[in-house]
Amino acid sequence: MFYHEDTLQYEVEVEEPDPQFAKMLQQAIGGAEGEMRVALQYMFQAFAVPREHEEYRTLLMETAVEELGHIEMLATAVTKNLEGAPEATREAAREDAVIDAMMSHGQPRQALSAGLHAMPVDSNGVPFTGNYVVASGNLAADLYANIMAESTGRLLATRLYEMTDDPGMEDMLSYMIARDTMHQNQWHAAVDSLGEHLPVPASFPQEKENQEYSYTFMSTFDEERPDPEMPWTRGETPDGNGEFDYGRQPGNGFADVEAMLEEMHNEVN
Amino acid sequence: MFYHEDTLQYEVEVEEPDPQFAKMLQQAIGGAEGEMRVALQYMFQAFAVPREHEEYRTLLMETAVEELGHIEMLATAVTKNLEGAPEATREAAREDAVIDAMMSHGQPRQALSAGLHAMPVDSNGVPFTGNYVVASGNLAADLYANIMAESTGRLLATRLYEMTDDPGMEDMLSYMIARDTMHQNQWHAAVDSLGEHLPVPASFPQEKENQEYSYTFMSTFDEERPDPEMPWTRGETPDGNGEFDYGRQPGNGFADVEAMLEEMHNEVN
Amino acid sequence: MFYHEDTLQYEVEVEEPDPQFAKMLQQAIGGAEGEMRVALQYMFQAFAVPREHEEYRTLLMETAVEELGHIEMLATAVTKNLEGAPEATREAAREDAVIDAMMSHGQPRQALSAGLHAMPVDSNGVPFTGNYVVASGNLAADLYANIMAESTGRLLATRLYEMTDDPGMEDMLSYMIARDTMHQNQWHAAVDSLGEHLPVPASFPQEKENQEYSYTFMSTFDEERPDPEMPWTRGETPDGNGEFDYGRQPGNGFADVEAMLEEMHNEVN
Amino acid sequence: MFYHEDTLQYEVEVEEPDPQFAKMLQQAIGGAEGEMRVALQYMFQAFAVPREHEEYRTLLMETAVEELGHIEMLATAVTKNLEGAPEATREAAREDAVIDAMMSHGQPRQALSAGLHAMPVDSNGVPFTGNYVVASGNLAADLYANIMAESTGRLLATRLYEMTDDPGMEDMLSYMIARDTMHQNQWHAAVDSLGEHLPVPASFPQEKENQEYSYTFMSTFDEERPDPEMPWTRGETPDGNGEFDYGRQPGNGFADVEAMLEEMHNEVN
Amino acid sequence: MFYHEDTLQYEVEVEEPDPQFAKMLQQAIGGAEGEMRVALQYMFQAFAVPREHEEYRTLLMETAVEELGHIEMLATAVTKNLEGAPEATREAAREDAVIDAMMSHGQPRQALSAGLHAMPVDSNGVPFTGNYVVASGNLAADLYANIMAESTGRLLATRLYEMTDDPGMEDMLSYMIARDTMHQNQWHAAVDSLGEHLPVPASFPQEKENQEYSYTFMSTFDEERPDPEMPWTRGETPDGNGEFDYGRQPGNGFADVEAMLEEMHNEVN
Amino acid sequence: MFYHEDTLQYEVEVEEPDPQFAKMLQQAIGGAEGEMRVALQYMFQAFAVPREHEEYRTLLMETAVEELGHIEMLATAVTKNLEGAPEATREAAREDAVIDAMMSHGQPRQALSAGLHAMPVDSNGVPFTGNYVVASGNLAADLYANIMAESTGRLLATRLYEMTDDPGMEDMLSYMIARDTMHQNQWHAAVDSLGEHLPVPASFPQEKENQEYSYTFMSTFDEERPDPEMPWTRGETPDGNGEFDYGRQPGNGFADVEAMLEEMHNEVN
Repeated sequence: MFYHEDTLQYEVEVEEPDPQFAKMLQQAIGGAEGEMRVALQYMFQAFAVPREHEEYRTLLMETAVEELGHIEMLATAVTKNLEGAPEATREAAREDAVIDAMMSHGQPRQALSAGLHAMPVDSNGVPFTGNYVVASGNLAADLYANIMAESTGRLLATRLYEMTDDPGMEDMLSYMIARDTMHQNQWHAAVDSLGEHLPVPASFPQEKENQEYSYTFMSTFDEERPDPEMPWTRGETPDGNGEFDYGRQPGNGFADVEAMLEEMHNEVN
Repeated sequence: MFYHEDTLQYEVEVEEPDPQFAKMLQQAIGGAEGEMRVALQYMFQAFAVPREHEEYRTLLMETAVEELGHIEMLATAVTKNLEGAPEATREAAREDAVIDAMMSHGQPRQALSAGLHAMPVDSNGVPFTGNYVVASGNLAADLYANIMAESTGRLLATRLYEMTDDPGMEDMLSYMIARDTMHQNQWHAAVDSLGEHLPVPASFPQEKENQEYSYTFMSTFDEERPDPEMPWTRGETPDGNGEFDYGRQPGNGFADVEAMLEEMHNEVN
Repeated sequence: MFYHEDTLQYEVEVEEPDPQFAKMLQQAIGGAEGEMRVALQYMFQAFAVPREHEEYRTLLMETAVEELGHIEMLATAVTKNLEGAPEATREAAREDAVIDAMMSHGQPRQALSAGLHAMPVDSNGVPFTGNYVVASGNLAADLYANIMAESTGRLLATRLYEMTDDPGMEDMLSYMIARDTMHQNQWHAAVDSLGEHLPVPASFPQEKENQEYSYTFMSTFDEERPDPEMPWTRGETPDGNGEFDYGRQPGNGFADVEAMLEEMHNEVN
Repeated sequence: MFYHEDTLQYEVEVEEPDPQFAKMLQQAIGGAEGEMRVALQYMFQAFAVPREHEEYRTLLMETAVEELGHIEMLATAVTKNLEGAPEATREAAREDAVIDAMMSHGQPRQALSAGLHAMPVDSNGVPFTGNYVVASGNLAADLYANIMAESTGRLLATRLYEMTDDPGMEDMLSYMIARDTMHQNQWHAAVDSLGEHLPVPASFPQEKENQEYSYTFMSTFDEERPDPEMPWTRGETPDGNGEFDYGRQPGNGFADVEAMLEEMHNEVN
Repeated sequence: MFYHEDTLQYEVEVEEPDPQFAKMLQQAIGGAEGEMRVALQYMFQAFAVPREHEEYRTLLMETAVEELGHIEMLATAVTKNLEGAPEATREAAREDAVIDAMMSHGQPRQALSAGLHAMPVDSNGVPFTGNYVVASGNLAADLYANIMAESTGRLLATRLYEMTDDPGMEDMLSYMIARDTMHQNQWHAAVDSLGEHLPVPASFPQEKENQEYSYTFMSTFDEERPDPEMPWTRGETPDGNGEFDYGRQPGNGFADVEAMLEEMHNEVN
Repeated sequence: MFYHEDTLQYEVEVEEPDPQFAKMLQQAIGGAEGEMRVALQYMFQAFAVPREHEEYRTLLMETAVEELGHIEMLATAVTKNLEGAPEATREAAREDAVIDAMMSHGQPRQALSAGLHAMPVDSNGVPFTGNYVVASGNLAADLYANIMAESTGRLLATRLYEMTDDPGMEDMLSYMIARDTMHQNQWHAAVDSLGEHLPVPASFPQEKENQEYSYTFMSTFDEERPDPEMPWTRGETPDGNGEFDYGRQPGNGFADVEAMLEEMHNEVN
């Protein structure tokens, strides 16, 4: 059950409206690396965590709710970057510098479909999709998905930071980048708290996998090359269960292909 | 530049065709956790790695090419699970047990659009999308995306393994699960080889983030609760740069909201 | 800024797990008529309402937050309908009646991608999309979008109600249907509170529209028919600004087409 | 069964080609508020109306067919706004002002995929989707969907009108805005003709809903607030069946959550 | 400008409702091979044909309009296959054989979102998308797209024919298959009428292409193989401008890769 | 099974980086006419070809593998056109001409999500989708799909050629256009090698289609017109099985509509 308060989690100011930056900010709202994704991802993951792991359920849901507040902050930032372009004065649109910039460099739909406000789309105008949400029902896999989400999320936020010199936007982004730092750290700490969990899912017994191929780096170069002696071709494997090796794709020979083909009977035209 | 050979990477046999399992296998071809995703993800990541990191470029591309071979194996498996239902005999369709199972439990499009063959869609029939591909231009972020992809990928493969008792399918999956074990390990080894890289992106100076909020777990419970003393609320942070703390959302007060609202002038109707 | 509490808005019980009903419930989570849509729609609409209409901003945001709680309830209902199928026992899957029903009648991805939990997809397995969210920046248009959303939403909930005879599910749905009743009423009351607002947007002066065609029902039957004398072909118009009329498509004659064509110069091959 | 005539429903002239405006017009063709949506929406709704309501079936189909003509008009307008840029002269492209504007401000695909013609996409280049079409099988719900579609549709048309000062485009849009005025009015008249129909669907007996919650505005503010005494918290409800009330989310207590959690048994890793 | 008549183009009868077949028919409405695709494809192609080729513009538009009537026929067929399941009796749903079949084998959304009527989605429930429409602005390319569309369209119709033994459905499909026969023939005749047009686009002078590679079949087998002497490796080419040849991928050597890499300077983490 | 070599199939040089052209090139990577489409299309088609037609299976797979190399070339071209904008110097972004051009005319996500590299999206930023892949299980239909794909593909490449004057890009495109010439020719040769195959699928006996309508061009003009005596209304049909004819839509009369309506019983509200 959810509640809200009529204040932002952190101040959002814009000194100079910039429609092009408003378009960029959309990536952080509705994009693959954006806040709608993490808010919903952590929420659906939390829905799936059972009682005996309530500490993880709480961890996930509390962060989901924090991210809802980030959507709100970014939506405010988008509106403020499109200000100076109130609909009432749109008729004089082409003479107004902000409107003109909006028309040339902003997202058309932001004017046409949303009256110069935030939308659930990314910076290219592609709608948010449930496809972005990873909630696998396996906690270790989910936590790695979260590490990844906060890695690309902080990367996005730093790229946005470098594209503005508006003090208000820099301040908002310096807060969001800090939160991404925290979230990366908390998901790493949570993964560490699981103890031995590699390979994911740890619940599947490795005896059932074809262990002949479990720790061999498979080179696919056209001409065979010698072992490059990299950390992924020699030495103990991170899961602690084997030694890296170096080899080629096995290939199951023509015979099998023949057999395979013999069994198939399709029309051709 | 690419080459191929007219043989499968690993044998694919099906004793008893099972259209329902063919549908399930589609998830491993065109789904969010599937082989099209990893093949293309590693390929696009490789395209972006510069010369001074050629060992990573090679690592990524060699694995991309291995995954292409997995698409081929799975496509063969789908066709074999739909066999016994050649189009030539479709007219007698409803009397044939395999066809009948296909109609009831398979994917309609597999019969209607693909003549009982593999398609670039997931197990629900939703088409593969470029949205699944993560290639951020930042190697650390990409490697975490790969750890996640192989975690959910191996999870999927083990779930498929548990849903079949066909010896051929079990054998194929035992190979694929082993390869996922290797790939998880190789991406972990690659991340480790980067040295200190947290928080991602390490190239952004933390002085620019609002460090007041960099290491505080932000509780969003409606009623304030005491610090639960979890690994993510106390102790050193995994990036080695701070100490976890426990607190509440700051909130920037009503004044700012007022200010915010005062500046906005929209039409209402 | 948002908060949550670790309890459901309303009790969710399932007497007899039913994977087919779990699939149906997904429509109410991630479908066009679902709770993700209304939660996000009301939230984005609220983000765009300016200060001088704060009562509407509050109305929208309070309801958005209530709907977040409905996603949580439905996700719980999905999990409970898939229970009896814990992953740990999946290996014995095909012998278990619930698992078997899941395989035959449930959504494949619910087992394969989500470990038998809720997902942000609809009942056909199609992912939620930002396309469902209507937030136009015009309050009257938004309120009509909300009336429509709650009309199709309540329709969906009543159809779900009629498809189950599980007492727990009936109880949960009887609550949700009641809330949809309230929401339909509140959006109607809000539209009424706007006073004269037709045609939407009222801010556009009707003098600028080609008023010759503003109130004529345009018949497109191949053979001309007499005025059927329906409420939309005669009498005062609901906006109070005109009288309904009955006529045919004007058609601008061949001359214009000729002119149009003459101006176009394209390659053909 | 359909017919056509080789003339436009209404004249379409463009004095000065404007590729940026061509991009904007795409929203009215393939966008969420566009003509493809309403043409197909009314058509699918008509397909579902039974004999005893033939007047509604006719109403819906006649308007669907009128909207097909609007797609044709807008496609003509897009082509004319991209004129002066025939493919034959594209080689001299960058020197030509219209082509240069197309490249900078138009949609890339309009040149690359469509040879400077209309496409079934919106102004951001996102393809039209069947998701936009609402045809619920319930006439009241459908008519509210139509009121909403024409409200956002007329809003879009007025925004387009304000973004051009080309006399030809103003004339075309003044016609289309007038038609949207008519369509809003006709759908309102049709809803009114249904008599008492709230809450939708009226066929579901309200005794089955949990009437304790049917008319209470549920406040979700973090701190409880007094009844704001708005038209949606007091007074008779628009459906005529109750009185508005003001309250809080019920919450079903921790006990149930405990119970809920106890029943769930999932793997964690 | 369009018109309609309140009759179907061809009779649509269903002796025995079959919800599973209704689901299959959806492929012919909203699928990649369906009637929405061809109706809109031919329409958008027609919009782009200039005056001096009016005979092709007419050819395309007349067929587009015929296809609109096929959508109407198929929507009627879907409704009739879902009959016996009127919403009013849904409460007794699970006891009714048709409803039960619908629930088990039909599309969930057809009941939940559309009240057992046709929808703009395919047989897997995936929404129709503007992506299916090919209208390139080049007549030869468009005509080949149409040959392809009618080839896969007739293939779909024959597969549907083989999956039913309902005399009404067989009759309807025998008509539609005949129309696809005609449409394949008319597009072939239209392509033939263009005269020499290969390679498409014929307007691009072949001197500008790197003619060293214009007629060589490029083998990509890992191990070089001899020319298989197939119709695509020897003999005159269909465009009449060359002779087929057999060779390998050129490859531009490491030097270029080195140079390429040297120029790229990216962050890695 | 696949292999690769660390060199490009053909040299890719860019003299002057051009972010706007990088955006255009994305159409050739992830667009409807792009290389991802053909690579995957030919691959999935090859997966479905049975033994007795191995020459076609080889033809398809060899070309698929060549196209993989084109994705690699184009990805290199995109990176080179965005060069001069390394992430390390992004902070000084707005002062750099290439960065500034990127921000104004490039794809936002190319900077924000991909660090100025290639992505699996089209020139409008819309993700690649499995929907583009046609692999019908019928060889003739597939080959026509390939003719169409190479027709629109070569059209795209020539349009790109005309939009650049960079010698490196012209050279790369002159190679790709030549390959498209070859591919069009090889698919035509392959279709010709099938012998009589019209109408597709040839395996369906034409006696089963309603032959009364197999060769009549059906005019849908509102007012009946005389036979225009075009190659598609008179003369022998391309399949050699009939004579073209000219007529009107049959229409099945009101009686049937009445009957149809009588059978349908839906709720209205």
